[in-house]
Amino acid sequence: MRVELVAIGTELLLGDIVNGNAAWLGARLAEAGIDVTHAVVVGDNIDRIGEVFKVALARADAVVVTGGIGPTQDDLTREAVAQVAGVSLVRDAGLEAELRRRFTELRRDVPEMNYRQADLPAGASAIPNTKGTAPGVRAEVRGGVIYALPGVPHEMQVMFDDTVLPDLLARAGQPAAIVNRVLKTAGMWESAVAAAVAPLVAELEAAGNPTIAFLASGGQTRVRITAKAGSSAAAEALVAPVEARVRAALGSAIYGVDDDTLDVVLTRLLRERGQTIGVAESLTGGLLGERLTAAAGASDVFRGAIVAYATDLKSALLGVPAALIAAEGAVSAACAVAMAQGARERLGATFGLALTGVAGPQEQEGQPVGTVHIGLATPAGVLSRSVRMPSDRPRIRMFSTVAAMNLLRLHLLGSAPEGSQA
Amino acid sequence: MRVELVAIGTELLLGDIVNGNAAWLGARLAEAGIDVTHAVVVGDNIDRIGEVFKVALARADAVVVTGGIGPTQDDLTREAVAQVAGVSLVRDAGLEAELRRRFTELRRDVPEMNYRQADLPAGASAIPNTKGTAPGVRAEVRGGVIYALPGVPHEMQVMFDDTVLPDLLARAGQPAAIVNRVLKTAGMWESAVAAAVAPLVAELEAAGNPTIAFLASGGQTRVRITAKAGSSAAAEALVAPVEARVRAALGSAIYGVDDDTLDVVLTRLLRERGQTIGVAESLTGGLLGERLTAAAGASDVFRGAIVAYATDLKSALLGVPAALIAAEGAVSAACAVAMAQGARERLGATFGLALTGVAGPQEQEGQPVGTVHIGLATPAGVLSRSVRMPSDRPRIRMFSTVAAMNLLRLHLLGSAPEGSQA
Repeated sequence: MRVELVAIGTELLLGDIVNGNAAWLGARLAEAGIDVTHAVVVGDNIDRIGEVFKVALARADAVVVTGGIGPTQDDLTREAVAQVAGVSLVRDAGLEAELRRRFTELRRDVPEMNYRQADLPAGASAIPNTKGTAPGVRAEVRGGVIYALPGVPHEMQVMFDDTVLPDLLARAGQPAAIVNRVLKTAGMWESAVAAAVAPLVAELEAAGNPTIAFLASGGQTRVRITAKAGSSAAAEALVAPVEARVRAALGSAIYGVDDDTLDVVLTRLLRERGQTIGVAESLTGGLLGERLTAAAGASDVFRGAIVAYATDLKSALLGVPAALIAAEGAVSAACAVAMAQGARERLGATFGLALTGVAGPQEQEGQPVGTVHIGLATPAGVLSRSVRMPSDRPRIRMFSTVAAMNLLRLHLLGSAPEGSQA
Repeated sequence: MRVELVAIGTELLLGDIVNGNAAWLGARLAEAGIDVTHAVVVGDNIDRIGEVFKVALARADAVVVTGGIGPTQDDLTREAVAQVAGVSLVRDAGLEAELRRRFTELRRDVPEMNYRQADLPAGASAIPNTKGTAPGVRAEVRGGVIYALPGVPHEMQVMFDDTVLPDLLARAGQPAAIVNRVLKTAGMWESAVAAAVAPLVAELEAAGNPTIAFLASGGQTRVRITAKAGSSAAAEALVAPVEARVRAALGSAIYGVDDDTLDVVLTRLLRERGQTIGVAESLTGGLLGERLTAAAGASDVFRGAIVAYATDLKSALLGVPAALIAAEGAVSAACAVAMAQGARERLGATFGLALTGVAGPQEQEGQPVGTVHIGLATPAGVLSRSVRMPSDRPRIRMFSTVAAMNLLRLHLLGSAPEGSQA
């Protein structure tokens, strides 16, 4: 089974938009074991679109098209499909009624132009769009099949997963359902995650289903488990034991699944416990506070932050003893702990979490770029952790906030690293 | 003149990488007035690459190829060009010597595999690569021309601007040089910027050179002036009077040009004056401090930030009178001013800059989502500005920091809005 991707829109050729749909579809089809050989972008020109469809149908079994199915005159995908199939467009009564229903919900009349979205090439069927008004088109043409979807990513993605992928898999004689589970880890490099899971990966390799992939970004590593089966339930049943083994291998390094983010998970743990956090920052300049307030509802658990960027402010605002800074330096585990204590007291929070370090580009106090100390003050005492990040300024700052949030998360779960007790 | 773009690499089809090169090249060619009709992605397969080249040469005058010219066995662009041209690859003595020179600089032997990068299809010429080791290829094939460039964006972009675009323009019989000037504004909506420049745009429209485009993102509007001429100097001479008129129309709303960012410009203004800034935040959670410390060297001017997210901390940490909050609310111009005064004093800075507002999703103190008050405390007094941002939580927070930095910038330039004196 070979698939060709076609994206339609002059705005893509002009570079106003990057063709992210092709990357998303390519990744999705690769997971499903379906080959994509070409991805083409063509402008809003009916003859060129038709030519591209003909070339694609000659070299692939199926063509997945994005864009050009809106209501305006430069949306030409429906017309081009009809032209290549040698049929005319026919207004579909069911789609027309559905359009009227949708616009009535919005308390608006259907603009005359929008009725074009109820047209289908003769013999084609509609692909339901649950997120927007433009239905997709599925047409058997020249011994192959064309699926035409909207260019709007969140509409296209749902329609692809719900209708196009199952149809493609059935045509390929493959199991009809694919389930993905993404386990998100913090505090381990990708190589360490891969090493911990290596025996399982080796074991799964022979059967080839489920598969495991590792994806690293933003100082975190994701483990993706993908299973194919005849139904979603059967695919889920294949994922479950593999997920259990990955969880056993990685333990508390896994902070969440799928769309979870570390800040939301940490905020949820604190909210469940009725606890709060106050932050002291230096090299991150406010990034840790920014992360903890990115999601709505942060005010339940986030008290505030003191960014003591200048060294003298670490004493003035956080009460770090000047003698401590003179003896240990502002970039030290002892200073991080004192900052965390200051944040806890002065911000009136259950926990104080502090970061001090060297973001670069120059070393500081003789310490190399990437040296970062995290301090945590709890009702029961303090702990610290020191890390070394081999990277550039933006990433050192981002990885530092991940490491800090992860330290508090592990503490809340009762699994903060033993050796770091200060 | 019609150009087709071809990107080579299985990793693009798998969705591991988004084809940003096509968007960049599409925008560059559109500025130059050259039509791009198709953009194709194909995997690392020599027969498919050759087929794609043939189709492209049949429908376009020139083909710009990215990727597949590295040293490894799956880099097949050179071979495919030779195949389509019906010639063999010939090792180029000059390129071979250049490769040796580069590796000697790195104190390494040339790996045997890398000598492939010195091969050229017979009759083709090399495109110099000043940023990496892989030279590009320019080959006249089947009545058209193929330019093969690396997939690495920063190498590809320089090679395109220095060699490919002038060559394309010469072939098209067009002026050989294009100069872009981007003027960056803050504090004006795109529609207001466009309205202020409208007479100039209308005047330029007839001649079509230079042109003006508006680009809005991140709460800022950029004005791009593009001129074409026989030489860079002549194009610059066309840009200069248009730039002067745009500057006259927009005045101090323009904070910088090309790669300038608002935080770097503000930091530079403060550094020049030997002045410092301290920040008080609420709805932004630390984002303003984060922005001001994003670039290296921030410690010269940035003292620190107090993020008083919880209302009681606005009094405890910033000295905002509880009576003021009771009377005016925490989301008020008066509170923003008091926060700014507190930041200025407690952080020991020349200027205190403060933000308070409603990031949403719920309204607060009866004030709608998007209400934001900015306070500025200076050695001479205080000012405030209140804005209403019709947007979502992430954008309200981002736009707020832009508005705050811009208020201080305008004050430093002596052009803060009159009416806002508190």
